[in-house]
Amino acid sequence: MIPDERGFLMEILRADDDIYERFGQAYVTAAYPGVVKAWHYHRLQTDHFCVMSGMAKVVLYDSREDSPTHGEINEFFIGEQRRQVIKIPNFVYHGYKNIGTGTCLLLNIPTETYNYSEPDEFRVDPHSGEIPYDWNRHDG
Amino acid sequence: MIPDERGFLMEILRADDDIYERFGQAYVTAAYPGVVKAWHYHRLQTDHFCVMSGMAKVVLYDSREDSPTHGEINEFFIGEQRRQVIKIPNFVYHGYKNIGTGTCLLLNIPTETYNYSEPDEFRVDPHSGEIPYDWNRHDG
Repeated sequence: MIPDERGFLMEILRADDDIYERFGQAYVTAAYPGVVKAWHYHRLQTDHFCVMSGMAKVVLYDSREDSPTHGEINEFFIGEQRRQVIKIPNFVYHGYKNIGTGTCLLLNIPTETYNYSEPDEFRVDPHSGEIPYDWNRHDG
Repeated sequence: MIPDERGFLMEILRADDDIYERFGQAYVTAAYPGVVKAWHYHRLQTDHFCVMSGMAKVVLYDSREDSPTHGEINEFFIGEQRRQVIKIPNFVYHGYKNIGTGTCLLLNIPTETYNYSEPDEFRVDPHSGEIPYDWNRHDG
Protein backbone atom coordinates (compact mmCIF):
# COMPACT_ATOMS: atom_id res chain seq x y z
CA MET A 1 0.00 0.00 0.00
CA ILE A 2 1.51 3.31 -1.13
CA PRO A 3 -0.62 6.24 0.07
CA ASP A 4 0.05 9.83 -0.99
CA GLU A 5 -1.86 13.11 -1.29
CA ARG A 6 -3.55 11.96 -4.48
CA GLY A 7 -4.88 8.63 -3.17
CA PHE A 8 -3.01 5.35 -3.08
CA LEU A 9 -1.70 2.46 -5.11
CA MET A 10 -1.71 -1.18 -4.12
CA GLU A 11 -0.43 -4.20 -5.98
CA ILE A 12 -2.74 -7.20 -5.62
CA LEU A 13 -1.33 -10.16 -7.53
CA ARG A 14 1.63 -10.40 -9.89
CA ALA A 15 2.49 -13.07 -12.44
CA ASP A 16 5.88 -13.45 -10.67
CA ASP A 17 4.37 -13.94 -7.19
CA ASP A 18 5.01 -17.33 -5.59
CA ILE A 19 1.29 -17.90 -5.10
CA TYR A 20 0.41 -17.13 -8.73
CA GLU A 21 -0.58 -20.08 -10.93
CA ARG A 22 -2.48 -18.72 -13.92
CA PHE A 23 -5.15 -16.20 -14.84
CA GLY A 24 -8.66 -17.45 -15.41
CA GLN A 25 -10.51 -14.19 -14.99
CA ALA A 26 -11.11 -11.26 -12.67
CA TYR A 27 -14.48 -10.44 -11.17
CA VAL A 28 -15.79 -8.34 -8.35
CA THR A 29 -18.47 -9.41 -5.92
CA ALA A 30 -20.21 -6.89 -3.67
CA ALA A 31 -22.09 -7.55 -0.45
CA TYR A 32 -24.31 -5.18 1.48
CA PRO A 33 -23.72 -4.91 5.26
CA GLY A 34 -24.41 -8.17 7.08
CA VAL A 35 -24.74 -10.27 3.90
CA VAL A 36 -23.18 -13.73 3.86
CA LYS A 37 -22.09 -15.21 0.53
CA ALA A 38 -21.27 -18.83 1.37
CA TRP A 39 -20.64 -21.76 1.20
CA HIS A 40 -18.98 -22.61 -2.09
CA TYR A 41 -16.24 -24.90 -3.20
CA HIS A 42 -14.65 -25.59 -6.58
CA ARG A 43 -13.22 -28.78 -8.02
CA LEU A 44 -10.85 -27.19 -10.52
CA GLN A 45 -10.53 -23.60 -9.52
CA THR A 46 -8.21 -21.90 -7.04
CA ASP A 47 -9.43 -18.50 -5.83
CA HIS A 48 -7.50 -15.39 -4.84
CA PHE A 49 -9.66 -13.08 -2.72
CA CYS A 50 -8.76 -9.47 -2.06
CA VAL A 51 -11.10 -6.89 -0.52
CA MET A 52 -11.05 -3.56 -2.37
CA SER A 53 -13.25 -1.58 0.00
CA GLY A 54 -14.92 -2.24 3.31
CA MET A 55 -14.17 -5.16 5.61
CA ALA A 56 -14.99 -8.84 5.19
CA LYS A 57 -14.79 -11.95 7.27
CA VAL A 58 -13.55 -14.68 4.92
CA VAL A 59 -14.08 -18.16 6.33
CA LEU A 60 -12.65 -21.46 5.09
CA TYR A 61 -13.75 -24.94 6.08
CA ASP A 62 -11.62 -27.90 5.14
CA SER A 63 -13.74 -30.99 4.58
CA ARG A 64 -11.03 -32.90 2.68
CA GLU A 65 -10.68 -36.33 4.33
CA ASP A 66 -7.01 -36.69 3.45
CA SER A 67 -6.00 -33.20 4.59
CA PRO A 68 -3.83 -32.49 7.67
CA THR A 69 -6.23 -29.61 8.41
CA HIS A 70 -9.37 -31.76 7.95
CA GLY A 71 -12.33 -30.30 9.84
CA GLU A 72 -10.60 -27.00 10.59
CA ILE A 73 -12.19 -23.56 10.25
CA ASN A 74 -10.09 -20.50 9.36
CA GLU A 75 -11.36 -16.95 9.79
CA PHE A 76 -9.65 -14.02 8.06
CA PHE A 77 -10.61 -10.39 8.62
CA ILE A 78 -9.47 -8.54 5.54
CA GLY A 79 -10.10 -5.25 3.79
CA GLU A 80 -9.25 -1.64 4.42
CA GLN A 81 -7.80 -2.43 7.86
CA ARG A 82 -5.75 -5.40 6.61
CA ARG A 83 -4.66 -5.57 3.00
CA GLN A 84 -4.13 -9.22 2.20
CA VAL A 85 -4.77 -11.73 -0.57
CA ILE A 86 -6.29 -15.05 0.53
CA LYS A 87 -5.55 -18.03 -1.72
CA ILE A 88 -8.27 -20.67 -1.48
CA PRO A 89 -7.43 -24.17 -2.72
CA ASN A 90 -9.95 -26.19 -4.67
CA PHE A 91 -12.20 -28.50 -2.62
CA VAL A 92 -12.03 -26.14 0.39
CA TYR A 93 -15.40 -24.65 1.38
CA HIS A 94 -15.31 -20.87 1.64
CA GLY A 95 -17.38 -17.75 1.80
CA TYR A 96 -17.46 -14.28 3.23
CA LYS A 97 -19.59 -11.89 5.25
CA ASN A 98 -19.61 -8.13 4.96
CA ILE A 99 -18.80 -7.08 8.55
CA GLY A 100 -18.50 -3.35 7.75
CA THR A 101 -20.96 -0.48 7.51
CA GLY A 102 -20.82 0.13 3.74
CA THR A 103 -20.82 -2.05 0.66
CA CYS A 104 -17.94 -4.52 0.66
CA LEU A 105 -16.19 -5.00 -2.70
CA LEU A 106 -14.26 -8.22 -3.05
CA LEU A 107 -12.06 -8.91 -6.07
CA ASN A 108 -11.47 -12.53 -7.01
CA ILE A 109 -8.82 -13.66 -9.50
CA PRO A 110 -9.51 -17.37 -9.98
CA THR A 111 -7.37 -19.73 -12.04
CA GLU A 112 -10.32 -20.67 -14.29
CA THR A 113 -12.94 -18.81 -16.30
CA TYR A 114 -16.49 -19.21 -15.09
CA ASN A 115 -18.22 -21.88 -17.14
CA TYR A 116 -21.83 -20.76 -17.61
CA SER A 117 -23.16 -24.10 -18.84
CA GLU A 118 -21.34 -26.25 -16.31
CA PRO A 119 -20.27 -24.10 -13.36
CA ASP A 120 -17.42 -25.45 -11.26
CA GLU A 121 -19.28 -24.26 -8.18
CA PHE A 122 -20.79 -26.40 -5.45
CA ARG A 123 -22.92 -24.78 -2.78
CA VAL A 124 -24.07 -25.41 0.77
CA ASP A 125 -26.53 -23.15 2.62
CA PRO A 126 -24.64 -20.88 5.04
CA HIS A 127 -27.17 -21.21 7.84
CA SER A 128 -28.20 -24.89 7.58
CA GLY A 129 -25.62 -26.15 10.06
CA GLU A 130 -24.25 -28.67 7.55
CA ILE A 131 -20.92 -26.97 8.01
CA PRO A 132 -20.13 -26.44 11.70
CA TYR A 133 -19.82 -22.67 11.64
CA ASP A 134 -22.06 -19.88 12.94
CA TRP A 135 -21.89 -16.79 10.71
CA ASN A 136 -23.34 -14.53 13.42
CA ARG A 137 -21.09 -11.92 14.98
CA HIS A 138 -19.26 -13.25 18.02
CA ASP A 139 -19.51 -10.46 20.61
CA GLY A 140 -17.35 -10.69 23.69
CA MET B 1 -23.51 -6.57 -13.79
CA ILE B 2 -25.77 -8.93 -11.85
CA PRO B 3 -27.42 -7.14 -8.90
CA ASP B 4 -29.51 -8.93 -6.30
CA GLU B 5 -30.61 -8.41 -2.68
CA ARG B 6 -27.19 -9.43 -1.38
CA GLY B 7 -25.12 -7.04 -3.52
CA PHE B 8 -23.86 -7.70 -7.03
CA LEU B 9 -21.42 -9.60 -9.17
CA MET B 10 -19.55 -8.27 -12.18
CA GLU B 11 -17.10 -10.00 -14.44
CA ILE B 12 -14.20 -7.73 -15.44
CA LEU B 13 -11.80 -9.59 -17.71
CA ARG B 14 -11.69 -13.25 -18.74
CA ALA B 15 -8.85 -15.25 -20.26
CA ASP B 16 -11.22 -16.14 -23.11
CA ASP B 17 -12.20 -12.52 -23.88
CA ASP B 18 -11.16 -11.25 -27.30
CA ILE B 19 -9.30 -8.31 -25.76
CA TYR B 20 -7.31 -10.51 -23.36
CA GLU B 21 -3.62 -11.00 -24.16
CA ARG B 22 -1.88 -12.12 -20.97
CA PHE B 23 -1.77 -11.42 -17.25
CA GLY B 24 1.06 -9.30 -15.91
CA GLN B 25 -0.48 -8.30 -12.64
CA ALA B 26 -3.47 -6.67 -11.00
CA TYR B 27 -3.27 -3.47 -8.99
CA VAL B 28 -5.67 -0.87 -7.72
CA THR B 29 -5.09 2.86 -7.85
CA ALA B 30 -7.23 5.25 -5.83
CA ALA B 31 -7.75 8.96 -6.40
CA TYR B 32 -9.41 11.47 -4.09
CA PRO B 33 -12.04 13.78 -5.63
CA GLY B 34 -10.59 16.09 -8.27
CA VAL B 35 -7.22 14.33 -8.43
CA VAL B 36 -5.64 13.80 -11.87
CA LYS B 37 -3.23 10.89 -12.36
CA ALA B 38 -1.70 11.52 -15.79
CA TRP B 39 0.02 11.50 -18.23
CA HIS B 40 1.70 8.11 -18.61
CA TYR B 41 2.57 5.84 -21.43
CA HIS B 42 4.22 2.42 -21.64
CA ARG B 43 6.49 0.92 -24.27
CA LEU B 44 5.75 -2.73 -23.55
CA GLN B 45 2.62 -2.77 -21.49
CA THR B 46 -1.04 -2.79 -22.49
CA ASP B 47 -3.40 -1.64 -19.74
CA HIS B 48 -6.96 -2.69 -18.94
CA PHE B 49 -8.69 -0.07 -16.78
CA CYS B 50 -11.90 -0.77 -14.91
CA VAL B 51 -13.39 1.49 -12.24
CA MET B 52 -14.54 -0.40 -9.14
CA SER B 53 -16.18 2.48 -7.29
CA GLY B 54 -16.87 6.11 -8.02
CA MET B 55 -16.61 7.74 -11.44
CA ALA B 56 -13.53 8.57 -13.50
CA LYS B 57 -12.78 10.45 -16.67
CA VAL B 58 -10.19 8.35 -18.50
CA VAL B 59 -8.43 10.28 -21.25
CA LEU B 60 -6.21 8.95 -24.04
CA TYR B 61 -3.94 10.96 -26.32
CA ASP B 62 -2.45 9.32 -29.37
CA SER B 63 0.95 10.84 -30.19
CA ARG B 64 2.03 7.97 -32.47
CA GLU B 65 3.18 9.49 -35.76
CA ASP B 66 2.19 6.46 -37.83
CA SER B 67 -1.25 6.07 -36.29
CA PRO B 68 -4.53 6.75 -38.12
CA THR B 69 -5.74 8.42 -34.91
CA HIS B 70 -2.58 10.51 -34.51
CA GLY B 71 -3.24 13.63 -32.42
CA GLU B 72 -6.67 12.49 -31.27
CA ILE B 73 -8.00 12.76 -27.73
CA ASN B 74 -10.52 10.23 -26.37
CA GLU B 75 -12.53 10.80 -23.21
CA PHE B 76 -14.29 7.93 -21.42
CA PHE B 77 -16.55 8.40 -18.40
CA ILE B 78 -16.57 5.11 -16.59
CA GLY B 79 -17.42 3.71 -13.19
CA GLU B 80 -20.60 3.04 -11.26
CA GLN B 81 -22.74 4.72 -13.94
CA ARG B 82 -21.06 2.92 -16.83
CA ARG B 83 -19.36 -0.41 -16.29
CA GLN B 84 -16.72 -0.77 -18.97
CA VAL B 85 -13.14 -1.96 -19.40
CA ILE B 86 -10.85 0.37 -21.35
CA LYS B 87 -7.95 -1.28 -23.13
CA ILE B 88 -5.03 1.12 -23.59
CA PRO B 89 -2.38 0.20 -26.17
CA ASN B 90 1.29 0.79 -25.50
CA PHE B 91 2.71 4.16 -26.62
CA VAL B 92 -0.67 5.85 -26.11
CA TYR B 93 -0.65 8.57 -23.43
CA HIS B 94 -3.34 8.11 -20.83
CA GLY B 95 -4.52 9.09 -17.41
CA TYR B 96 -7.60 9.65 -15.34
CA LYS B 97 -9.35 12.14 -13.11
CA ASN B 98 -11.67 11.36 -10.23
CA ILE B 99 -14.82 13.26 -11.23
CA GLY B 100 -17.00 11.90 -8.40
CA THR B 101 -17.56 12.87 -4.81
CA GLY B 102 -15.86 9.96 -3.05
CA THR B 103 -12.65 8.05 -3.51
CA CYS B 104 -12.40 6.52 -6.98
CA LEU B 105 -10.98 2.99 -7.13
CA LEU B 106 -9.56 1.95 -10.49
CA LEU B 107 -8.40 -1.59 -11.14
CA ASN B 108 -5.73 -2.11 -13.77
CA ILE B 109 -4.78 -5.50 -15.22
CA PRO B 110 -1.72 -4.79 -17.36
CA THR B 111 0.02 -7.34 -19.56
CA GLU B 112 3.33 -6.88 -17.73
CA THR B 113 4.51 -6.91 -14.12
CA TYR B 114 5.77 -3.59 -12.80
CA ASN B 115 9.57 -3.52 -13.02
CA TYR B 116 10.78 -1.65 -9.94
CA SER B 117 14.35 -1.12 -11.17
CA GLU B 118 13.45 -0.13 -14.71
CA PRO B 119 9.81 0.96 -14.84
CA ASP B 120 8.13 0.80 -18.22
CA GLU B 121 6.44 4.10 -17.40
CA PHE B 122 7.02 7.46 -19.09
CA ARG B 123 5.41 10.56 -17.65
CA VAL B 124 4.33 14.02 -18.75
CA ASP B 125 2.95 16.64 -16.35
CA PRO B 126 -0.88 16.78 -16.67
CA HIS B 127 -1.04 20.57 -16.46
CA SER B 128 2.03 21.65 -18.47
CA GLY B 129 0.21 21.95 -21.79
CA GLU B 130 2.69 19.59 -23.50
CA ILE B 131 -0.30 17.45 -24.35
CA PRO B 132 -3.15 19.54 -25.78
CA TYR B 133 -5.78 18.69 -23.17
CA ASP B 134 -7.29 20.68 -20.31
CA TRP B 135 -8.14 18.45 -17.36
CA ASN B 136 -10.53 21.02 -15.85
CA ARG B 137 -14.23 20.26 -15.80
CA HIS B 138 -15.97 21.48 -18.94
CA ASP B 139 -19.20 23.08 -17.72
CA GLY B 140 -21.87 23.92 -20.21
